Amino acid sequence: MKKIRIEEDMFGAVELPSYVLYGINTYRTVENLSFSGKTLSRYPEYIKALARVKKAAALANLESGLLPRSIGNAIVSACDELISGNHHEHFPVDMLHGGGGIGTNMNTNEVISNLANKSLGGALGDYAPVHPIDHVNASQSTSDVCHTAIRLAITEKFPSLRQEIEAVMQTIFEKVVEFKEVTTIARTCLQDAMRVKVADKFSGYEAMLRRRFATLNEAVIPLQKINLGGTVIGSGVGAPKEYRDVIVQKLCEVTKIQLRHRDNLFDAAQNIDDLANVSTELRLLASCLIKLAKDLRLLSSGPEAGFGEIILPAVQAGSSFFPGKVNPVIPETLIQSCFQVIGNDRAVEATLEHGELDLNVFEGSAATNIFDSMTMLEKTLSSFRENCLKGLKVNEKRCENLSNTVIPLVVELKERHGYKAITQLMKETGIDGVKTYFYGGDKIDKN
Amino acid sequence: MKKIRIEEDMFGAVELPSYVLYGINTYRTVENLSFSGKTLSRYPEYIKALARVKKAAALANLESGLLPRSIGNAIVSACDELISGNHHEHFPVDMLHGGGGIGTNMNTNEVISNLANKSLGGALGDYAPVHPIDHVNASQSTSDVCHTAIRLAITEKFPSLRQEIEAVMQTIFEKVVEFKEVTTIARTCLQDAMRVKVADKFSGYEAMLRRRFATLNEAVIPLQKINLGGTVIGSGVGAPKEYRDVIVQKLCEVTKIQLRHRDNLFDAAQNIDDLANVSTELRLLASCLIKLAKDLRLLSSGPEAGFGEIILPAVQAGSSFFPGKVNPVIPETLIQSCFQVIGNDRAVEATLEHGELDLNVFEGSAATNIFDSMTMLEKTLSSFRENCLKGLKVNEKRCENLSNTVIPLVVELKERHGYKAITQLMKETGIDGVKTYFYGGDKIDKN
Amino acid sequence: MKKIRIEEDMFGAVELPSYVLYGINTYRTVENLSFSGKTLSRYPEYIKALARVKKAAALANLESGLLPRSIGNAIVSACDELISGNHHEHFPVDMLHGGGGIGTNMNTNEVISNLANKSLGGALGDYAPVHPIDHVNASQSTSDVCHTAIRLAITEKFPSLRQEIEAVMQTIFEKVVEFKEVTTIARTCLQDAMRVKVADKFSGYEAMLRRRFATLNEAVIPLQKINLGGTVIGSGVGAPKEYRDVIVQKLCEVTKIQLRHRDNLFDAAQNIDDLANVSTELRLLASCLIKLAKDLRLLSSGPEAGFGEIILPAVQAGSSFFPGKVNPVIPETLIQSCFQVIGNDRAVEATLEHGELDLNVFEGSAATNIFDSMTMLEKTLSSFRENCLKGLKVNEKRCENLSNTVIPLVVELKERHGYKAITQLMKETGIDGVKTYFYGGDKIDKN
Amino acid sequence: MKKIRIEEDMFGAVELPSYVLYGINTYRTVENLSFSGKTLSRYPEYIKALARVKKAAALANLESGLLPRSIGNAIVSACDELISGNHHEHFPVDMLHGGGGIGTNMNTNEVISNLANKSLGGALGDYAPVHPIDHVNASQSTSDVCHTAIRLAITEKFPSLRQEIEAVMQTIFEKVVEFKEVTTIARTCLQDAMRVKVADKFSGYEAMLRRRFATLNEAVIPLQKINLGGTVIGSGVGAPKEYRDVIVQKLCEVTKIQLRHRDNLFDAAQNIDDLANVSTELRLLASCLIKLAKDLRLLSSGPEAGFGEIILPAVQAGSSFFPGKVNPVIPETLIQSCFQVIGNDRAVEATLEHGELDLNVFEGSAATNIFDSMTMLEKTLSSFRENCLKGLKVNEKRCENLSNTVIPLVVELKERHGYKAITQLMKETGIDGVKTYFYGGDKIDKN
Repeated sequence: MKKIRIEEDMFGAVELPSYVLYGINTYRTVENLSFSGKTLSRYPEYIKALARVKKAAALANLESGLLPRSIGNAIVSACDELISGNHHEHFPVDMLHGGGGIGTNMNTNEVISNLANKSLGGALGDYAPVHPIDHVNASQSTSDVCHTAIRLAITEKFPSLRQEIEAVMQTIFEKVVEFKEVTTIARTCLQDAMRVKVADKFSGYEAMLRRRFATLNEAVIPLQKINLGGTVIGSGVGAPKEYRDVIVQKLCEVTKIQLRHRDNLFDAAQNIDDLANVSTELRLLASCLIKLAKDLRLLSSGPEAGFGEIILPAVQAGSSFFPGKVNPVIPETLIQSCFQVIGNDRAVEATLEHGELDLNVFEGSAATNIFDSMTMLEKTLSSFRENCLKGLKVNEKRCENLSNTVIPLVVELKERHGYKAITQLMKETGIDGVKTYFYGGDKIDKN
Repeated sequence: MKKIRIEEDMFGAVELPSYVLYGINTYRTVENLSFSGKTLSRYPEYIKALARVKKAAALANLESGLLPRSIGNAIVSACDELISGNHHEHFPVDMLHGGGGIGTNMNTNEVISNLANKSLGGALGDYAPVHPIDHVNASQSTSDVCHTAIRLAITEKFPSLRQEIEAVMQTIFEKVVEFKEVTTIARTCLQDAMRVKVADKFSGYEAMLRRRFATLNEAVIPLQKINLGGTVIGSGVGAPKEYRDVIVQKLCEVTKIQLRHRDNLFDAAQNIDDLANVSTELRLLASCLIKLAKDLRLLSSGPEAGFGEIILPAVQAGSSFFPGKVNPVIPETLIQSCFQVIGNDRAVEATLEHGELDLNVFEGSAATNIFDSMTMLEKTLSSFRENCLKGLKVNEKRCENLSNTVIPLVVELKERHGYKAITQLMKETGIDGVKTYFYGGDKIDKN
Repeated sequence: MKKIRIEEDMFGAVELPSYVLYGINTYRTVENLSFSGKTLSRYPEYIKALARVKKAAALANLESGLLPRSIGNAIVSACDELISGNHHEHFPVDMLHGGGGIGTNMNTNEVISNLANKSLGGALGDYAPVHPIDHVNASQSTSDVCHTAIRLAITEKFPSLRQEIEAVMQTIFEKVVEFKEVTTIARTCLQDAMRVKVADKFSGYEAMLRRRFATLNEAVIPLQKINLGGTVIGSGVGAPKEYRDVIVQKLCEVTKIQLRHRDNLFDAAQNIDDLANVSTELRLLASCLIKLAKDLRLLSSGPEAGFGEIILPAVQAGSSFFPGKVNPVIPETLIQSCFQVIGNDRAVEATLEHGELDLNVFEGSAATNIFDSMTMLEKTLSSFRENCLKGLKVNEKRCENLSNTVIPLVVELKERHGYKAITQLMKETGIDGVKTYFYGGDKIDKN
Repeated sequence: MKKIRIEEDMFGAVELPSYVLYGINTYRTVENLSFSGKTLSRYPEYIKALARVKKAAALANLESGLLPRSIGNAIVSACDELISGNHHEHFPVDMLHGGGGIGTNMNTNEVISNLANKSLGGALGDYAPVHPIDHVNASQSTSDVCHTAIRLAITEKFPSLRQEIEAVMQTIFEKVVEFKEVTTIARTCLQDAMRVKVADKFSGYEAMLRRRFATLNEAVIPLQKINLGGTVIGSGVGAPKEYRDVIVQKLCEVTKIQLRHRDNLFDAAQNIDDLANVSTELRLLASCLIKLAKDLRLLSSGPEAGFGEIILPAVQAGSSFFPGKVNPVIPETLIQSCFQVIGNDRAVEATLEHGELDLNVFEGSAATNIFDSMTMLEKTLSSFRENCLKGLKVNEKRCENLSNTVIPLVVELKERHGYKAITQLMKETGIDGVKTYFYGGDKIDKN
C-alpha cells in the first residue's frame, strides 16, 4: 500500500506520496503547467545552481541576523545535499512552465525546507520550523533567484563545451599538419577553380571555429553579472540592505566564481538579451558547423560518382539496403544537432521579443533552450571529433588528379598569357585543346 | 552479476546486456549518434507505426512468396507485440541520429528479429532463423520504412490534438454565448477606440481557431499518401513487383487507415515539404495562440492598474513574493509552449532547406519536431481549456465603465455630427468637455 | 522658382509643392514615418486595389444616398484615373509606416479628393467640395480599407506568378520527356547509390512544384473574403446599414472578382493569419526551389572535378578571374531570391506574433513583404526558366559511366545473391573485386 | 533619336545607350539576374567602397610595376570620381544577383574603364587603352574585391548609426533625470506588483541599449580585417607578391581606416560569419527595441481604458475614423522597421547556412540585408528620438494613483508582517479589506 501525506493551500488539499521532498506548490505546477517532458530533474546544473543561490542567501540572511542560526544552518546543509547531486529526482516541475519560474523556485524552496526540517527532526510536509517562503526564500523573489541561477548554471556548464570546441580545433589543426603536402582543387560556385592545398582548406575550418569560439566566450562572460538581491524588479524591496550588501560576496564564496552585480538591476529584470546573445552565438556556431559538416560530406562523396577527395572513417553500417555502403552518419548527426540548436535559438528569439515591462517572465524558456543547445553541441562535437575527424584521411591520388584538370591549368596559363588570350584559346579548342597546349607546349611542375 | 552477450559486425565485437531485444546496429547508433535525450522509446506512436509497417511488409512478403510461412508469421506476431505497446524500452536510439534513419530502422529490425526468434525457440542475438535484414527488412529500405512510418504516426497521433482544438473552440463558443450582453471597449494601437461586445471579441478568437484548425487538417490529410514499396529513392529496386502491388493494401488493413501511394515515389524520397507544411501549420496555430493568450493576459491585467475586463481563474499561488498575487500562469505556459513549437518549426525549416538530390536524409529531424510540437500543443491546450478558459469570467462593472469613456462617446457623436465638428470640439474642450457635452446635452442609452 | 502651397492641420502649417496631389497628412507620414525606401508608388497593384475599394465605397455611398451625386461621381472618376495607372507618383508614403496604414489610406483619400476637386473646378489643397475624410473615406476606416485592398491586390497580382510557376512546371515536364532514356546514378547521403533515370529525378522536381503550387493556390483563395463595411474592428460602426448591404457587391462589380464578406468581421480585424498563410506558402515554395537550384548546381558541378551529369546553359561570363569559366549564376540568383522570400516570411511571422486585441495594426508589414516575395519569385522564376531550365542538357556519356560504377552494381548483385553474401564480397575484394566479379562472371546489359 | 553603341562578348552583341558608362557584362547581369529592385546605384557607400578598393589596387599595381603609369593614373582618377559620389546612376546591377558578385565587380570595372578611357581621349565601349579586366581588375578577383568592399562599406556606414544610437541613449538618460521623482507601479506577468520610480524603469531601457550598443560595436570592429590580395579563395594566385605586400597599406591610405589582413585568407573566402555576427547583433538590437516600443505603447495606452502612465507626443492625426485620436505611430513605425531587420537577419542566416567549400558565393545577399537593416534602424531611431522620446511626458497624477493601489500596499505590509499573515488577510478581506487595514490601521508615507 502506497503511503501518502496531505498538503493544503488556498486552492484545496492534495495527496502526495509521503516520501517526496517537494510539496503542494510543486504538485500544482506539475499538474497545471507540465507539457514538455523536460523536467527540472534532468538539468542537474540548474538544480545545483539554484541550491547554490539558496545557500548563499541563507548565509547572507544568517550574517544579517535575518534567520535564526539553527534554521539557517539547516538550510545550508540541505543545499549542500543538492549541490552534491542528491535528491534531484524530487524536481518534477516542467522547465518550461509559465509564471516566470514560480514553480522552479517553489520546488527548490519546498525540497530544501523538507530536507532541513527532516534534519531537525521534523516531518515532511510540516514546513516547520523551516518554512519554504519565510525562511528558504527569505530576502529573495522567484525573479532574482531564477535569473541568477540560470546565469550561474550556464557559466558552470560552459567549460566542458569550451573544452570540446578546443579539442575539435586541435584535431583540425592536426589535419592541417597532416595534409600539408597534398594539393587538390578548389571550387567556386561548385565549379572547378584552382589548385589549393588540402591543408589550407582545413586551416579555414580551424580559423572559423577559432573565431566562433572567441565570440561565444565573449558572450558567456557577462553572465557572471547577476541580480540576486534585486528581488522582483530590481528595486530590492523585500531584501534588507544588510543582506543586499553581502549576498554577491556570499555567492562568490559558494560558487568560487567571480560574480558581480549587474550595473542596473532594473535592466536585469526587464531584459534577457544577455541570454539571447549566448543563444545567438550558439546558433552562429551551429550554422558554421553545418557548413563544415556539409563540406566533409561533399568532399567525401563517392566512392566513384562524387568528389572523393577525403575519406571519412566508417563507424557503423550505413544502410539496411546497400551491403558495404558507409554513409557519413557522424557529420549528418552533427548537422541534425545543429538544426536543433537553430530551432532552439528561434524559441529564444521569441522569448526575447515577447518580453514586456518590468520583468521578462518568459526567461525560463530561454534558459531551457540554451541548456539544451549546449548539451547537444557538446555531445555531437565529441563524437564528431572522436569518430569522424580523428580518422579522416585524404585520397592523395584523387586529389592529385583533380588538381591537374583543365581549369586549374587555365589559371596557370592565364597568369602567363593574360585573360583575353586564354579565353580565346578555351573558346576555340575547348578543354582538350587547353590540356594539349598545356602539357604539350609548356609542361609545368605538377607539384 | 550482469549477464551479457556478444555481438559482432564488420567493425568488431561488442558486449550487450543479455536480455536486450536490440542488437549491435542499435548499439552502435546509440554509442555514436546519441545527443538529444530524445530516445525512440519515448515516441510510442512512432514505434507502433514502424511495427505496423514491418507487419504489413511481412504480410506482403508472405503473400508474394518472398518469406517462408513460419518466418513471416513470427515477424507478424513480433510486430503485434510492439503494436500492443510492449517492449518499447528496447528502442534506445536517438530520434535525431543522422544517416537517414538507419538506426531507427535497424533498431526495429533487430527487436522484431529477436522477438520472432525467441518465439521460435531461438536465442537473442542469433538472428536466425529470422534475420533482421534478410527477413524483417525484406523488400524494404530505411528510406521508405521511415518515410511511411513517420506519416502514419502523425496521422494516428493527430486526432487527439484535433479533438483538443475542437474542445477549445467549443469552450470559447460557450464564452461567446455567456458574454453576449456585456459591452466593453475596443482598442486599436492600444488606444481607446469604440464599444464592442465581449462576445464579439471572443467570437473573433473562435473564428481564428476554426480557420487554423481547418488548414491544419488540410495539411495532415496528404500524409495518408505514402511511399512504401519505393525502397530507397522511389524506383522500387529491391522490392519485387508482387510485393509492391499489395503492400499499400496490406498497410491499409493493418492500420485501418485509407492510405495510398504517392503519385510520384521519386518525389516522395526527394522532398519532405508535406511534413514541413504540417509543421508550418502548427507554427501558425502557435502564433495565433500566442496572440490569444497575450490578449487574455492583457485583458485580465490588474487588478487595479490594468485593463481588468476579464478575470482568469486562479489555479495556484502565482508568486513566492506577493501574498495573494495570482498570475496568469496558464496562458503563460501556453505561450512558452508555443515558443517551442515555433522553434521546432525553425528546425524543420532547416531540414527542408538542406534536403538534396534523391533523398532528404534529414527527415527524422522534421518528424521529431512535429511529434514534439503536437504533444506540447495538445497538453497545453488541454490545461488551458480546463484551467483557464472554462472558468474565465468577465468583470461586467469594469466593462461598462470602460465602454462609457470618452473616445467611444466621441465615436457616437461623430456619427451624428461629422468628423470635423467633433475634432474641433475635442481640440477645444478636451476629454472632459466632450463628456460634459455628451451626457449633458444628449444622453444616450448606455447599453 | 518652385511653386508651393500651404496646408494646415492641428499640428501646424506646411509647404507643399503646388502640383502634388497628396496633402498634409501624406506629408506628415512621409516626414515622420519613412525609413524603408519602399514607397507606395512602387506598388501599383496596391494603389489600384485601394482605388477600387474607394470607387466601390463611393458607389455604395451613392446608392445609399450618403453622398451627393456630383461628389460621388467625381470620386469615381478620380478612382478610375488611378486604376488606369495614372498619378502613382503621388503616393510617396512608406509602405511600412506604423499606425495601421493611416498614411496609406490618407494618401489615397487626399489624392482622390484633389483629383475630384480639380475635375470639379476646385484647387489642389482646398479639399472642397470633395473632402478626403467626409466624402472619400465615407463609411470606411483605415482598417477595413487597407485590409480589403491588401487582399485584393494579392489576388490580382497572383495570376502572373501562378502562370510563371505553371510555365516552370511545364518546362521541367519537357525535360522529363527529353531525359527519358538516360540512366545515371542516384545518391543518398551524397554517397553513390543506385541507378536512376534522369527523367525520374526530374519528375520528382515537377511533382514537388505541383504540390507547392496547389497549396499556394489554396492559400490565396481565402483572400477573396474581405471585410469592407466592418470599419475599424468589424462592428461596422460608422458605416450605415444600407452601405454595408451593398458594398461587397459593388466591389465585385468594380473588380470582376467573386469577393465575399468574411464570416466574422471581428476576426478579420483581429487576425492576419490568412496573410501569414500565403507568406508561409511562398516560403515553403522558396525552400523547395533552393533545393532544386542547389541540385542543379551540384549535378552540373565540374567540368572535371564535379558530378557533371547535366550542363546548364551559359548566359554570361561567370568570372572576372577565370577565362571561360561559366558559373551557375541563374540558379544562384534564384537561391538568393529565395533567401529574401524566407527573410520576408520571417518579418511576416513577427507581424503575426505581435498582433493584439481588436486590430492587428502591423498588417501593412505583412502586405509589403508578401508583395515583394511575389514579385521576386515571379521575376527569378521567369529568368530561371528561360535562361537555365530550357537549355539544360544532360551529359549522356558521363551519366552512363556513373550508372556503371560499383555501388549500383552491388545493388544488382544483392538482388540476386542476398545482402550478406555481397557484404562479404565487398569486404574481401573491395570495389575492384566487385567490378571484376560483376563484369566477369555475370555481364549485365548496361542500358 | 536615342543614340546607341554596340558591345559584344562570347554570347553575342547587344545595343547599349551610347552614354552609359557600364558595358556588356553589366547589361547581361541586369538582363539575366535582376529581380529585387535593389540596384547597386541605391547603395552609395558600397559603390564608394568598391571604388576605394579599385583605387588602392591600382596604386598597388602601379607601385609594383604591374600597370603602365598612364593607365594606372587614369584608373585612380576615375575611382576618385566615384568616391566623390558621381556617376552612381551607372550602377544598375541588382545587389542580389547570383554568381558571387560577378556583376557588381564587372559593373565597377566597366564604369572605371570607360571613365578612364574617356579621360585619355578614348570612346565609351572601346575598353582601350584601359581594359576592365586586364587593368582595372588587375591582381584582383570578384571574390576579394567584393569581400573587402562589403566590409569597408559597413565600417564606413556604421558611425552614423552609432551616433544615432548614442543620441537615443542620451535622450533616454535625460528622461531618467526628468522622471526621477515620479513613483508608479511595476507589473509582473502584467499583474500589479510593486512601486517603482519611472526613472528606474527608464534606466533599464538605457542600460539595455548601452549593452546592445557595445556588442554591436564589437561585432563591427572585426570587419576592418579584409582579404584583398587573396584573390579567389585566399591563395593569392593571380596577385603578384609585390602587389600583395602593399595592397592593404594602400587601402589604409585610401580609406584612412586602420585595416589589416585577415589572419587566414582561406577562412575569409570560405566564411561570412563575421557578417552574420553583425546582422545578428542588429537583430538583437531590433528585438530589444520592439520591447521598448511596445512598452511605450502599453504605458501610454488609454486615455481612459489603458495604463496611461506616460504621454507620447502627438505628431499627426492617428486615425481617419476617430476625431482627435492620436495613435503611437512613431513606436509602431519603429516596431515595423525592427520586423524588417529581423526578417533581413533571417535572410542572412540562410546565406550563412548555405555557404559551401572554398567560397561563400552568396555573400552579396548578406551584405545587402545588413546595409538595409542599418539604414532602416538609423532612420527610424532618428524619428523615434526626435518625434517620440524627446517630448515624452509622464502623467504624474495617474502614476501616483497607481502606486497607491492594493498590491503595492500588500508588498509593504508583507515586509512588516510576513507572507503568511498577509496572504490570510487578502483571502479573508479581499482588496478592499487590505486597503482599509492599510490606510486605517497603519498609515504609511505615500512617497
